[in-house]
Formats: sequence, C-alpha cells, structure tokens
Amino acid sequence: MPNRTVFFVSDGTGITAETFGNSILSQFAAKPRHVRRPFIDTVDKAHQVVREIDHAAAIEGKKPIVFATLVDAEILGIVKEQSKGLVLDMFNTFIEPLEAEFGMTSNHRIGRFSDISKSQEYNDRIEAINFSLEHDDGQSAKNLAQADVILVGVSRSGKTPTSLYLAMQHGIKAANYPLVPEDFERGQLPSTLAPFKTKCFGLTIDPERLAQIRNERRPNSVYASLDNCRHEVREGESMMRRHGIAWLSSTHKSIEEIATTILRDLRPDRLMY
Amino acid sequence: MPNRTVFFVSDGTGITAETFGNSILSQFAAKPRHVRRPFIDTVDKAHQVVREIDHAAAIEGKKPIVFATLVDAEILGIVKEQSKGLVLDMFNTFIEPLEAEFGMTSNHRIGRFSDISKSQEYNDRIEAINFSLEHDDGQSAKNLAQADVILVGVSRSGKTPTSLYLAMQHGIKAANYPLVPEDFERGQLPSTLAPFKTKCFGLTIDPERLAQIRNERRPNSVYASLDNCRHEVREGESMMRRHGIAWLSSTHKSIEEIATTILRDLRPDRLMY
Repeated sequence: MPNRTVFFVSDGTGITAETFGNSILSQFAAKPRHVRRPFIDTVDKAHQVVREIDHAAAIEGKKPIVFATLVDAEILGIVKEQSKGLVLDMFNTFIEPLEAEFGMTSNHRIGRFSDISKSQEYNDRIEAINFSLEHDDGQSAKNLAQADVILVGVSRSGKTPTSLYLAMQHGIKAANYPLVPEDFERGQLPSTLAPFKTKCFGLTIDPERLAQIRNERRPNSVYASLDNCRHEVREGESMMRRHGIAWLSSTHKSIEEIATTILRDLRPDRLMY
Repeated sequence: MPNRTVFFVSDGTGITAETFGNSILSQFAAKPRHVRRPFIDTVDKAHQVVREIDHAAAIEGKKPIVFATLVDAEILGIVKEQSKGLVLDMFNTFIEPLEAEFGMTSNHRIGRFSDISKSQEYNDRIEAINFSLEHDDGQSAKNLAQADVILVGVSRSGKTPTSLYLAMQHGIKAANYPLVPEDFERGQLPSTLAPFKTKCFGLTIDPERLAQIRNERRPNSVYASLDNCRHEVREGESMMRRHGIAWLSSTHKSIEEIATTILRDLRPDRLMY
C-alpha cells in the first residue's frame, strides 16, 4: 500500500515530467502513488494542485514529491512556495546553465507541442503510422520500396508493436512480415523481401515464452505447442543467419529497447538529426 | 545549419534523456544538431562517446551540450570529467534530494526497463495494442464491452493514431469507430455504439484541414472536397452534442495532447495509480 504520493505537474501533457520522474523513482525501492496533473496553465489551476498536494501531505503525514515542468514563473512559484510538497523543478534547474552556455535567454514558451500539428515532422509521423498499419503482418507487398525498415520473424515475436512504435515515435515507415512454416519448407525468405534484404531486421524470441504467448491466443493448438515453437524459432533464426539479416531476441526487451537497437544498427541517421 | 551538437547519452535507450532534453531545448531559439547515444554501459563505450563529443567540440568550436542519464558513477565520471561537453547530469541532480527525503539510498540500477517484458503492465500494453488494432476504424463490434475508450469521429479526424498511442503508452484498450454519411442520414449514432455511450469520446477537426488531409489520400474526390468536409464535420459535431459525447478538436493538438485530454476527462483513474 503506497503511503506517499508523487505528483507530476505540468503546463503541457506532463508526459515528460512523468517519464523522467519515473526513471528517477525507479532507482528507489519506494513504491509511491502516482498522480499526473496536465495542463496546469493558470493561477487557479495551480492553487487547485496546491490544495491536492497539501491534502496528500495531511493524509499521509509525508512530504509529497512533485516533479514540475512549469515554464511560467508565477505558476511555478505558487506550486513551489505555497505547497507542502518537495518540488523538483525540472526546467529551471537545467535552463540556467544552458542560458549561460548559449549566451541567450530562454523564451519561456509553454508546452512543447504548440501547433506541432502543422510541422513536417508531425505529418511524417502520421504518414508512417498509416504506412505501418497498411504493411502490418505482410498484409501488403505494395510500396515496400518506401519502407525504412522491414521487421521479419515468426508469428508473435513482437513485430507489430515494434513497427507501430517506430512509426509513432520516430516517423519510421516500418513494415513487418511474418516468417511462416511454408517459408521454412521452401528454405527461402518470402520472395517479396528478396530485393529489400538490407533493410530487413529480424526478431526472435525464446521458444518457451513464445509458446506461452501463443497459448493465450489459441490454447492447446499445434501452432502454440512448445515443439512447434522450438521448430519455428530454430528455422527462423537459421534463415536470418543464412541471409545475413541482423536480429535480436525480444524475450527480455521492452518495445523501446528493441526499437532503439534497430535504429542504432539499421538507421543510425535517425538518432542524429 | 546547426553549429552546435547536443548529445543524449544514456545507459538505457536514451529516450528519457532525449524527451526531457528536447523539451528544455524547445525553450531556446537555438537549433542544434541532435545525437542520441543509447546503451552506453561500459567504460569502453563511455570513452568512445567522449571522443565523439570532443570531435564535435573541435569542429564546431563550441561546447557540445550533453544530457546524460547514466546511473553508473564510473561511466558518468568519464563523460563528465574527460569530455569537453557541458554535461547536464539529469539523474544525480534529483536523486540527492530524493535520497534525503525518502531516507534511503538509491539502488543505482541501470536502465528502467530491465526485464519489464515479464511485468503485468507490459503484457497489458501488448494486449491493448492488439485490441486497438482489431478495433480500428469500426472493423469489429465484437468485445466493445471490453474497450476502455471508444473514439468516434469522421474519417481522418485523428482517431487511429490516438487509439494506438493510448494503447501503447497507457495500456488503454481504445477502439475507434468512424461516423459516416449514412449515420448522418439516419441521424443516429451507429447502433453498435449505443450501449457504450459513456465511454465514447469524439474527435472533430477543422474542415479546411480535413480537406487538405483527405486530398492527400484521394485528390479531387467528393470525399475530400471542402463542401463535403464542412458537411460531415458539422453533422458529426451536432451528433456528438446531441448524444452528450465529450469531444475536442484535433486540429492544433498533438497525439500526446489529445490522449492526455481524453484520459483526464474520461479515465482520470489512469492518471493516478
């Protein structure tokens, strides 16, 4: 039972505050309650958050932790000076040394997404999501030439979530293509992939874990049986090895880690821009 | 032409460092080059990054900015003390006050995703992604009772990316359902949605922007014409109003902002856990 609350207070979505705050909190054994308060962009809303922070402090008898990404000095001041929380000011802490180094003052704009909908980068993300949806699970071989990355691997090795993540977060057009028993019988990559081998990236997975995942979908099927999973994984890995396709095991990796590894190995340009 | 490089150096994916660093950099008019260096988890790799930072410093004649999320003291020390960059140490800056407040030392674990693949939260995300894919664009009315959220709106109002984002980032089972001219003629919500009105959330969009988006897909069609877009948007909004469905305009909002607003209004529990 959590006995302390952590607030993520932001004038924008609060996603930055929460992502960053969580990665710091993961260094502690404490398991606090999480409360995200987005769009705190008026003095009134700031006072409301202060009341909420103080309420938690009174009930729990402990200082709430407040990760704040608030650009406006007045709003930040209210939360920082009037609440009973330990306010970690994530913006100004780093803005000051940057102002000194850049030799310019920051412009104190609220929210990092303001009207991003019009930007090219944003349109590219949307287009990439549509592309990845249309090219999920080998649905379409059309326009594969336009793909940035083609993920290959046996069914349920993690291709779909990884493709969508690459599209959504990085604007990468990621197709994905299943390796199926017929491919293993022929001993060849699906013929549609042959011209695009250099942009293929393989996912493999521990057969025990694969059997577990497949059993949730189709319990007690041949498809989900451990024997079959072992066979498919072995054949898949050997096919990738034969064709010189880089691959990794998704078993103990998050979508974020898989996506980052693919970018680093296949599209390092996307980590530098 | 950027004349300064910003590095995001991490022992994990570097996504936290980059997200947070970008939101701080967005406060400045400077447009530096971005380089993300993930998985820097050995002394050798640290030295390699130092060389890269110093190379940028030499070429650009300016201190590179380095946003670092490095837990290991030795690795951080190398980057901090041996490179010519301005190193912003995102972890320790906040870990020290937290150690004092929690009354415990942090455990200096590397990477926040270690073996997260086994966690319930992670499985929920994957399941939500599959659900959202199966319920994209009204494809299936099956299991709508299991949906956490059902997005409604005219074609190309932003439903698909928002559903996938909600699933991927929050483990929310988000179905989406198009409002089509036939619905407007009948003057009624699609009948499959009627039992689930309380979990519907509407997206609308500026007709000019909609026409622009639709024209990219089907140039010069009736579907994409401004007149038709105006008609559909007007009818869609009036239908949502009549049925008491909360809605927002996606025109000037990012996927992240739309998703956060939906959570706040429809599933505030998902912002507190």
